[in-house]
Amino acid sequence: MHTRPVRVVLDAMGGDHAPAHEVQGALTALQELGTDVELILVGRESDISPLLAGFTKHSIRIIHASDVVGMGDEPSSILKNRRDSSLYVGLELMRSGQADAFVSTGNTGGVMATATMLCGRIPGVSRPTIGSFLPTKTGRPTLLLDVGANVDSKPKFLSDYAVMGSVYARLMLGIPSPTVGLLNVGEEEGKGTEVVREAYTLIRNNGVNFVGNVEGRDILSGSVDIVVCDGFEGNIVLKFAESVLGFLKSRFKAYADRGIVQKMIIGVFRPVLKSALRDMDYQEYGGVPLLGINGVAIIGHGSSSPLAIANMIQRAVEMVRKDVNGTIQKALASSSEPTKENV
Amino acid sequence: MHTRPVRVVLDAMGGDHAPAHEVQGALTALQELGTDVELILVGRESDISPLLAGFTKHSIRIIHASDVVGMGDEPSSILKNRRDSSLYVGLELMRSGQADAFVSTGNTGGVMATATMLCGRIPGVSRPTIGSFLPTKTGRPTLLLDVGANVDSKPKFLSDYAVMGSVYARLMLGIPSPTVGLLNVGEEEGKGTEVVREAYTLIRNNGVNFVGNVEGRDILSGSVDIVVCDGFEGNIVLKFAESVLGFLKSRFKAYADRGIVQKMIIGVFRPVLKSALRDMDYQEYGGVPLLGINGVAIIGHGSSSPLAIANMIQRAVEMVRKDVNGTIQKALASSSEPTKENV
Repeated sequence: MHTRPVRVVLDAMGGDHAPAHEVQGALTALQELGTDVELILVGRESDISPLLAGFTKHSIRIIHASDVVGMGDEPSSILKNRRDSSLYVGLELMRSGQADAFVSTGNTGGVMATATMLCGRIPGVSRPTIGSFLPTKTGRPTLLLDVGANVDSKPKFLSDYAVMGSVYARLMLGIPSPTVGLLNVGEEEGKGTEVVREAYTLIRNNGVNFVGNVEGRDILSGSVDIVVCDGFEGNIVLKFAESVLGFLKSRFKAYADRGIVQKMIIGVFRPVLKSALRDMDYQEYGGVPLLGINGVAIIGHGSSSPLAIANMIQRAVEMVRKDVNGTIQKALASSSEPTKENV
Repeated sequence: MHTRPVRVVLDAMGGDHAPAHEVQGALTALQELGTDVELILVGRESDISPLLAGFTKHSIRIIHASDVVGMGDEPSSILKNRRDSSLYVGLELMRSGQADAFVSTGNTGGVMATATMLCGRIPGVSRPTIGSFLPTKTGRPTLLLDVGANVDSKPKFLSDYAVMGSVYARLMLGIPSPTVGLLNVGEEEGKGTEVVREAYTLIRNNGVNFVGNVEGRDILSGSVDIVVCDGFEGNIVLKFAESVLGFLKSRFKAYADRGIVQKMIIGVFRPVLKSALRDMDYQEYGGVPLLGINGVAIIGHGSSSPLAIANMIQRAVEMVRKDVNGTIQKALASSSEPTKENV
């Protein structure tokens, strides 16, 4: 295990408020983690340096990258044409062994595609995946995965998401035996598409704590810890979920517009709504991991706060320390042993 | 066109409060529609008769059916083994031409499967579909379809959903040129699964007002009138959406449990929430149509109120009067003419 500090690359140019939020987040993380971490801020030196003025710890340094990948840039173009970008330079530092982990609030698809190509996969992983945390009635979030790394997933991909999600939830969320559900249109075995029916059989035998099919309503109910699905459905559900808060706000605004009393009621209630629904905003969880690559990458929302970025750095350090990748490799190796029954 | 009354079969045993809500709904519909409708209540005569006592209009009558299909019964079993059920007897009345339309708050999958097998499809329709209405920021609902009739839809199925949804929205919702979006993981052409990419090309050329791909977040935004998807995603999104209200309630309850002040705030706010979110409950729209069968079938939620059932009956009459099925047939015939460019 690592006894030296964990070296984390922070893509300092990724988010909507880069590099200000990134630098603030980095400094907060350093305060929390002390000598446990060494931070490498990658990005335009002339933009980052002034924000670090007066701060002279040796555990934070800047590596210059002149280019910045935008949110709308085509992920597949980065590897070919954007090698001076903070995203590429940062991931290349991890690939070459100069860093242990990579954190970004930039272009999610870009990080995913570039990290997969540069770093490769953990042995045994069919496809890397990215998940997302959704709030539930129980207060404990559900990990939904995949949410967009792969569309048209094959059954084996779904089975691998289940294994990777289980390892993550056990090591990082501290759930001893996380439950896994397969997202489907009904609970009975045999429901759904061909791919999902085959995945059902694979997941039942891959060693995870599989409870069977779950439906759309089970995501927010918290009845399982991990919901496995193809990236097509996962992405649609996630974007739908993220739009609910905006929809509610527009509804309450329409109500407030009915009159002065209604306006006052909504005025009182606004902070309540905010407080009650705080964790529908997934950046509070501090980013999501890209699972299955040979490396540690945490991706956050473009609008992440400095605190969320600090959380992402902490999480990256934890993923390295707890050897999530090594555990995934072992779990996949044992799940594919043909003679072993894991049920 | 029909000048005689429209004959509507009501499955009087379908819902959670059958036959009480059904009979009440039927009587309300008769008041509204007058001589425009003749109602046939199908179900256990001994249960229904007492509720009609004192009501002697010739425009409502009972046809006895001894069996009742439950919500958990396997849809495919009805055609074989449940021929005495109100669901089967009612649909058979439509098939044989003794009724023009069928309304039920019972087993959705059962109505769908049995109606499709008994009545067959409108010429040109690859697969019948069932849609659902979701509320939007604009106040005008979005029609999401398919929401569970067909999983593993082929591109042509998706194209047909677009045509059927457009005809329905134009004739029944009064939208002159309804906009259609294809549910996908990104807006750019070329995104998504193989099936969706092929469907994109078909829908662009089938004569509907196609705006291209839409994402999960566009469903509640109201940016399009119709969202087309496979029944697998549609069902998952719909069940997720239906679970949001319960999730919010549990969140507010948790807030109220923090103290007496919080409890009072939530107490004041509860009716506001209910009022603001009323139409997230889709039964308010009065059921959804099964589109593409040779006949008119409206299916409602099991917990439908008498008013919702009355609305469903009104909608069934309207679908017959406006010749939705004939219009679908013509639209599909013209969309498949190989020489015609409908773009």
